[in-house]
Amino acid sequence: MTASLPIAVDAMGGDRAPSEIVAGARLAKENHGIDVVLVGRSEELTDRGDLEVIEASEVIAMDAEPGSSVRRLKDSSLVRAAEAVRDGRASAMVSAGNTGATMASALLRMGRIKGVSRPAIATLLPAPGTTPTVLLDAGANAECKPEWLAQFGQMGAVFAQDRLNIPAPRVGLLSIGEEPGKGSPLVKETYAEMQTVNWGAAEFIGNVEGRDLLTDEVDVVVTDGFTGNVALKTLEGALKNLMLALFSAMGERPEAAEAAAQLGPEFDQIYRFFHPDTYGGAMLLGVKGVCVISHGSSGAQAMENAIKVAAEMVEAKVVEHLTEAIAG
Amino acid sequence: MTASLPIAVDAMGGDRAPSEIVAGARLAKENHGIDVVLVGRSEELTDRGDLEVIEASEVIAMDAEPGSSVRRLKDSSLVRAAEAVRDGRASAMVSAGNTGATMASALLRMGRIKGVSRPAIATLLPAPGTTPTVLLDAGANAECKPEWLAQFGQMGAVFAQDRLNIPAPRVGLLSIGEEPGKGSPLVKETYAEMQTVNWGAAEFIGNVEGRDLLTDEVDVVVTDGFTGNVALKTLEGALKNLMLALFSAMGERPEAAEAAAQLGPEFDQIYRFFHPDTYGGAMLLGVKGVCVISHGSSGAQAMENAIKVAAEMVEAKVVEHLTEAIAG
Repeated sequence: MTASLPIAVDAMGGDRAPSEIVAGARLAKENHGIDVVLVGRSEELTDRGDLEVIEASEVIAMDAEPGSSVRRLKDSSLVRAAEAVRDGRASAMVSAGNTGATMASALLRMGRIKGVSRPAIATLLPAPGTTPTVLLDAGANAECKPEWLAQFGQMGAVFAQDRLNIPAPRVGLLSIGEEPGKGSPLVKETYAEMQTVNWGAAEFIGNVEGRDLLTDEVDVVVTDGFTGNVALKTLEGALKNLMLALFSAMGERPEAAEAAAQLGPEFDQIYRFFHPDTYGGAMLLGVKGVCVISHGSSGAQAMENAIKVAAEMVEAKVVEHLTEAIAG
Repeated sequence: MTASLPIAVDAMGGDRAPSEIVAGARLAKENHGIDVVLVGRSEELTDRGDLEVIEASEVIAMDAEPGSSVRRLKDSSLVRAAEAVRDGRASAMVSAGNTGATMASALLRMGRIKGVSRPAIATLLPAPGTTPTVLLDAGANAECKPEWLAQFGQMGAVFAQDRLNIPAPRVGLLSIGEEPGKGSPLVKETYAEMQTVNWGAAEFIGNVEGRDLLTDEVDVVVTDGFTGNVALKTLEGALKNLMLALFSAMGERPEAAEAAAQLGPEFDQIYRFFHPDTYGGAMLLGVKGVCVISHGSSGAQAMENAIKVAAEMVEAKVVEHLTEAIAG
């Protein structure tokens, strides 16, 4: 029974590793009763309390070339974390480290689910007043084929069901116009491909646009990893810069600054709502195991959330459901 | 002398045509002394005051297929507006109508600047505390070649000089990582191409990311029309949804609603700063004439701004400068 296995946490990955990672792992255990095993250099994990450690002597740097690092650094925390899942010592892996190396470790050590052409990164976007929107691929595959994108849609639908409890997710294809004929050649071919796919309980609703991402118009948005990553970073930048501009404007007039101070709880609420850390990281869909990828800048709370998501996804049997959806 | 010619305004194009378009044209004349000629059905332009009209009996619908419409509707306001520029009866054209048909009219009637592979749509993105960022292509070419993108960079640099008075614009290539090796095959090839281009006073600064769009990191961001349009609409949606979420949050607590009411001027300032209408529309770069494309939803003030931008671009001799940059 997978749920009794611990979550393997890459203790060495992330801008604030190992201290914040270890702190997040402890929070996950204390606040949610989740069993966690740290992966890394035990001598550097002195604050680990009673958490167990899987030894790994090497660390893949945040800016290292993913493929060659994973092949070369066989005793790295990322590779060992993926192996722990493969070998049945852990139920899932979580890392805030090098995203490309996390994907490569998971792909090479766990392997692909049968029938999956390419794993994709699924991320959640906050949508005011409704469930978040699943965006995939958020950056795993800079260049895609129509069949891969259609499969991303199937995997994203399963993820929306298991992660967000949406029974019949609406799947949209990101384009530059709603009509079927709009978009790049890739999008047009993908549109045709997506009309032939078995969607199970989900539904393909056609093209959607960038302005639909944070709304209730769609549940799962499919795009290639290049466009998805640009859209994701554009969103993050827009939200940050709008908030900064607002605070700057409010600082210019004394009465405004006073009124703004009254709005502390509301600004805090909005900040949290739109902050990526709130959503517990992205998930690599299509590998034989749960792999959660947290922001490189993750602090303890972001890691706690990411570990909680990983445990929930194990519990929800998302890998089994993905396997069934792709086989079906 | 081009500056003495009127600006041709497509009176029939846009969701709020003709009334708001005509009102905007009158504002441009009254507030800025800009000579305007309306293009459309004079019998429907009863509020035109003393503005002159170039007769055009047909209208290209907002959702019509661009290419065939322009070929078929030879007496449409869009086609006649482009012809007015070609024939020396107007110095520039402005339309809030069908974007694809506006591009097609300008391209087919004015023709391309010698050496230009493909015209591109340049749009301005608000960057708090600094000059706006030029984004191109914002949607003219869903699929691009590396050489086209490099040329978009050259044209964008000229536009930044003439429109934003930036003497030495920093040109960046939109990608999913700052390192030269990051991105799609198109981006990697374009990077190499952009290193060989003659930048004049401008400078190619390498890859930039979605989060840089609204910042002072870069002046001109080059991308294909698919990615550019997705980024633009993602930005518009993010700003709208963040503002909505903020207002909604502030309405839940009576003290917050009171404080928010005090911040009216600041919210208004931010709203205007980020609103697309403030920037006077996008410009089609690479055709033999000034062609300004305003939002389909443009009201009188957006049209006034767009007409003012068109007049300024004629005055700045942007077409001459583009011609020199591409020839050089």
